[in-house]
Amino acid sequence: MGDATGVGVEAPDATPDREAQTTETARLEAFSDGVFAVAITLLALDLGVPAAKAVASAHGPAGAVGLAAALLHNWPHYLAFALSFLTILIMWVNHHSIFRFIRRCDHSFLLLNGLLLMVITTVPFGTSLIAEYLQSEHGAADRRVAMVVYSAIYLAMAVVYNVMWSYASRGGRLLDVGAKPHLVQSVTRQFRFGPALYLTVLVLAFISPEASLALNILLALFYALPSTITRALSA
Amino acid sequence: MGDATGVGVEAPDATPDREAQTTETARLEAFSDGVFAVAITLLALDLGVPAAKAVASAHGPAGAVGLAAALLHNWPHYLAFALSFLTILIMWVNHHSIFRFIRRCDHSFLLLNGLLLMVITTVPFGTSLIAEYLQSEHGAADRRVAMVVYSAIYLAMAVVYNVMWSYASRGGRLLDVGAKPHLVQSVTRQFRFGPALYLTVLVLAFISPEASLALNILLALFYALPSTITRALSA
Amino acid sequence: MGDATGVGVEAPDATPDREAQTTETARLEAFSDGVFAVAITLLALDLGVPAAKAVASAHGPAGAVGLAAALLHNWPHYLAFALSFLTILIMWVNHHSIFRFIRRCDHSFLLLNGLLLMVITTVPFGTSLIAEYLQSEHGAADRRVAMVVYSAIYLAMAVVYNVMWSYASRGGRLLDVGAKPHLVQSVTRQFRFGPALYLTVLVLAFISPEASLALNILLALFYALPSTITRALSA
Amino acid sequence: MGDATGVGVEAPDATPDREAQTTETARLEAFSDGVFAVAITLLALDLGVPAAKAVASAHGPAGAVGLAAALLHNWPHYLAFALSFLTILIMWVNHHSIFRFIRRCDHSFLLLNGLLLMVITTVPFGTSLIAEYLQSEHGAADRRVAMVVYSAIYLAMAVVYNVMWSYASRGGRLLDVGAKPHLVQSVTRQFRFGPALYLTVLVLAFISPEASLALNILLALFYALPSTITRALSA
Repeated sequence: MGDATGVGVEAPDATPDREAQTTETARLEAFSDGVFAVAITLLALDLGVPAAKAVASAHGPAGAVGLAAALLHNWPHYLAFALSFLTILIMWVNHHSIFRFIRRCDHSFLLLNGLLLMVITTVPFGTSLIAEYLQSEHGAADRRVAMVVYSAIYLAMAVVYNVMWSYASRGGRLLDVGAKPHLVQSVTRQFRFGPALYLTVLVLAFISPEASLALNILLALFYALPSTITRALSA
Repeated sequence: MGDATGVGVEAPDATPDREAQTTETARLEAFSDGVFAVAITLLALDLGVPAAKAVASAHGPAGAVGLAAALLHNWPHYLAFALSFLTILIMWVNHHSIFRFIRRCDHSFLLLNGLLLMVITTVPFGTSLIAEYLQSEHGAADRRVAMVVYSAIYLAMAVVYNVMWSYASRGGRLLDVGAKPHLVQSVTRQFRFGPALYLTVLVLAFISPEASLALNILLALFYALPSTITRALSA
Repeated sequence: MGDATGVGVEAPDATPDREAQTTETARLEAFSDGVFAVAITLLALDLGVPAAKAVASAHGPAGAVGLAAALLHNWPHYLAFALSFLTILIMWVNHHSIFRFIRRCDHSFLLLNGLLLMVITTVPFGTSLIAEYLQSEHGAADRRVAMVVYSAIYLAMAVVYNVMWSYASRGGRLLDVGAKPHLVQSVTRQFRFGPALYLTVLVLAFISPEASLALNILLALFYALPSTITRALSA
Repeated sequence: MGDATGVGVEAPDATPDREAQTTETARLEAFSDGVFAVAITLLALDLGVPAAKAVASAHGPAGAVGLAAALLHNWPHYLAFALSFLTILIMWVNHHSIFRFIRRCDHSFLLLNGLLLMVITTVPFGTSLIAEYLQSEHGAADRRVAMVVYSAIYLAMAVVYNVMWSYASRGGRLLDVGAKPHLVQSVTRQFRFGPALYLTVLVLAFISPEASLALNILLALFYALPSTITRALSA
């Protein structure tokens, strides 16, 4: 049943040339881009305008700094927004990075890609969670729970992404026949450590939410840095 | 009046070649992809961060597990999210599956496609409904109503999808002239049972909301499974 | 200043061939499609899950029909959703309809298109407004105000759309050089009555909100109907 | 590490011809268009339907003009919406304006573009902020804070946009080899004053929020005006 629903499985005009293959993944990429774009923009919904009531109560007897104080009190929202935005952006770059090599897709790959998108769409949820619970009025236990959930989402992202790439690249299953082996291997090498690193972030979240967050930020910056710097660092 | 508004009805340069025809449906697919992408991403808005108040009240005298308990209490939201995400994903795969054969479109087909998109955009509403009312504090009667509405949306999806495909494929009306009959028939066969199956899900919802949900999940998994397995199962 | 910002004004490689011109409007169409897709999907956010509290209070002494009653009480939301969805869909069809003839764009046209998109994005607001105020617990005066605002949005849509088409088609300013005059004129004829019809809807809203809504629905159905029927009706 | 993730850095088939280069930026543009489209549409979410309660309290003893008064009271929301919509629209036009010249992209440029998108997605937040705090019931201090934040977002937009263009155009780094120098320089000239102008808007916000808003509106209108007028004005 699933087979006939598969994009790219037996087209009416089964032209095996490169152009047809590009079309095959083009739709998948366009749909994925849409989900990435919506998810990354929804992050900003959580920045939230302080309610007039909260601002009023933040006014001291002097009544001078109501909105400013309320906005500053929301700092975890800005931090969480920036970290999540950067991470989704990196995931989008990575997504396109592997689609430079991928020319075909099958039903299993569509589902793996769907699973990745499902995880991506939960990032705004995790972001709201830590933004709310990093604020000082919440207890340490709740802060830990929030950070564990957030880190688990990131670990899931890293794992699904690696599974996708393994599936596509093993034996060149879905790759462009002209893809150069050393470039394919460099992608494999590059993402190999993602799951282990985000597992560390997750374990840290149980011990120290603050340390977990710090490592998460460092990873995002490291992945975002231009290669000339990261190459020197990892040499 | 409607005619001149129709995409694909009498272009200024009425080139009947394949390229022009691809352009004709390309815009329809791009717009549909946009709606699918937004709808599937909006599902995650319903995951919802537990309000600080709810968490506080979940704190027992020991005050230890506030957020964790509040998150676990929200389990129907995660289940509903996963089921709806998988279903919209399958619908998107199906949508592209039939557009591999379709090369033309007319005004009626545009409206049918619009009707399908309308149903798709109501899935997040239905999802919120069952996520809220599956929770234990609501009565059995409300749970039944929620599940009936949710199942009705799915039935509408299956019906409109079949009508769309019938309209496009009858006599090859909108199909690629080179579309192979046995492939077209395999698509017809494949979706033929959708309406009956989702009607069963709907009827079950009146009797047992839990059984209806279980069957709905089974159907989504069955449609998502790779064809090699489903073929063996349906053989 | 505006000039150099203009898409399509003096490209680095000013190739006047058709391919370059298609690219010129392709981006504008893709962006517009994105706005249409997001706006049409956001309509469904207003369907709204009845709050548990509202449902509880809807339970009579017998406590039997809480959620069902609350959902039925929301009927104006479903009506407003369907009408607005159909109207945005028709506007999208119309938008693509004129872009079959348009091959160039200039700064003024970009702004006119932006103005159209601005009006489109306010449709969900107008929809929420009438959905809320059509409900029986609101007074007749508020119902009238809601319907006037909603109708004004529709009138603005019809006017901006006509101005766009006039600007593009006058003297063939932005049209494909090969566009057949009789087809261009048929588009002009077809939309000429839109502003007058929606002005009638607006005036009616002051007198009878219900009659205004009814005429609005009739117009949407008339524009949506296949041309064979509408042609007979307007003959 | 960053390098291999870069879109456009060492493709499997490293064809240096124009077609491949166009594909390189096409994905970046499509993703950016998605973010622009979602952000500009989300602006309308802030128009907000007056809550029934607010309307009821707006009813005077005569009870005549509840909803109308509540809607009129929201005028800062409409003003903020229109200004932000026009500004995002201009930014989108500018974005495409520079991508007519850009044919390659590297990791740093991807990040700069991501930074621009991040700022764009915060515009709805800033818009909600001034819409809420321009209303008369808030104090002058809060009005100032809101306008400072809003202006800072606009300044960030102007700065990041200029950095992006400098990075891409310096030495023709990412430009089409055939891009005409005088056209490239005209773009450079055109945006050079943006940061200084928006810095003025920001400084004004500390002194007089109203004057800052007025200048901001003037700038948006000036950038939106067709070039024939702006050219005469700046001559």
